[in-house]
Amino acid sequence: MNAQVTPALTRDDFEAALRAKGGYYHIHHPFHRAMYSGGCTPAQIRGWVANRYYYQINIPQKDAAIMANCPDASVRRLWLQRILDHDGHDDDAGGIEAWLLLAEAVGLTREEVIDQRHVLPGVRFAVDAYLNFARRATWQEAACSSLTELFAPEIHQSRLDSWPDHYPWIEAEGYRYFRKRLSEARRDVEHGLSITLDHFVSAADQQRAFEILQFKLDMLWTMLDAMTMAYVHETPPYHTVTDQPVWHRGL
Amino acid sequence: MNAQVTPALTRDDFEAALRAKGGYYHIHHPFHRAMYSGGCTPAQIRGWVANRYYYQINIPQKDAAIMANCPDASVRRLWLQRILDHDGHDDDAGGIEAWLLLAEAVGLTREEVIDQRHVLPGVRFAVDAYLNFARRATWQEAACSSLTELFAPEIHQSRLDSWPDHYPWIEAEGYRYFRKRLSEARRDVEHGLSITLDHFVSAADQQRAFEILQFKLDMLWTMLDAMTMAYVHETPPYHTVTDQPVWHRGL
Repeated sequence: MNAQVTPALTRDDFEAALRAKGGYYHIHHPFHRAMYSGGCTPAQIRGWVANRYYYQINIPQKDAAIMANCPDASVRRLWLQRILDHDGHDDDAGGIEAWLLLAEAVGLTREEVIDQRHVLPGVRFAVDAYLNFARRATWQEAACSSLTELFAPEIHQSRLDSWPDHYPWIEAEGYRYFRKRLSEARRDVEHGLSITLDHFVSAADQQRAFEILQFKLDMLWTMLDAMTMAYVHETPPYHTVTDQPVWHRGL
Repeated sequence: MNAQVTPALTRDDFEAALRAKGGYYHIHHPFHRAMYSGGCTPAQIRGWVANRYYYQINIPQKDAAIMANCPDASVRRLWLQRILDHDGHDDDAGGIEAWLLLAEAVGLTREEVIDQRHVLPGVRFAVDAYLNFARRATWQEAACSSLTELFAPEIHQSRLDSWPDHYPWIEAEGYRYFRKRLSEARRDVEHGLSITLDHFVSAADQQRAFEILQFKLDMLWTMLDAMTMAYVHETPPYHTVTDQPVWHRGL
């Protein structure tokens, strides 16, 4: 047999193929589907918000890791905006603070969210994998892993469209985070996408980019699997031996 | 209020408290309980063996990471044995090879195990967290995380006691791994335990050791949670959009 040389996709086809990965976005996870359709209990919404907080607080570290591996000042100058958005600056209290407002709006205290007592081990391992990848990969690979932002505006919009009707008990100021990210994610994705389209050029490169984006999709899906075990099947870790949350809170 | 000074546990009480953590060992996970009591289907046994393979192949990398962080030749000289045990040397084909024999004995091909097609993202993230911890922690902390070996002989013995009766379709040569580890784990744990008892002396140190051991317990439990989602609830990743395994195979 002859060695087969796979031709690289054109830039447009490569972008289309990346966008097609949206078919595996966690918007299709049963936990998310239940959230949009009003099928979640207050405890399930609270569990999601408290666990997703761990993702939120790791995002600026992930972005700093990308910058730490990037020798190009023009890229860092743009990428820095993500850290400003999440950590806050000047009059913008930032995305983490907006997430805490959401937590309070769904009936959690800031304290129980910040001390991470609700963060399930499976959520922690998934999020840590993302941060760890950003630390060890090249900055272009790590930038590529951010491309689930391609699909994020739809998920934020679907929350804004469905939650107020389904969950009237959630206070309206809690929705600030989703509105904030709606515009930010649209801007961020342009930058991450252009880095990816410029860098992953050969067929082998493009295959690598698909694997990286799949890794990120896997991580988002796995977070919801852990929450499903704890809050839908009601089998949190160690449920056979204790009804106390005994898992570790980070090392 | 006065600052409260918690006294450190005595060496014996500290060891007893570490051993008491066995109450959270994955031997109590419903998936494991089903395995011992004959409640698993062949597909569930195969899923467990194929996923647990990912843990097996990461163990020598974890041990090499500990050695990479350890400046003490006398510790490295002892710790090296673990790598020899798993990777094999001279006439010993090693633990990874023994695991592949188990895989074949339960009806998997070597190829489908080695290429990791069955390894679920949640399993990968948990195992990677363990390797990553060993890379970043001190060698004493990483050694402490190995202390689930305190509980391993019981779990290997329970497999040897129950599987042949419950699963007569499993070929007997598959059990070599469990027998091999029965004696090795007893020897290994003496070393890991003495490092831990020597190093974690203050009450704060001991608290840190409990957290580290809990992290390891969380990782083992979480692996089984991911397998429960895929093989018990039959909701593997992306089951709402495809019946194909589309997750990434490592980056």
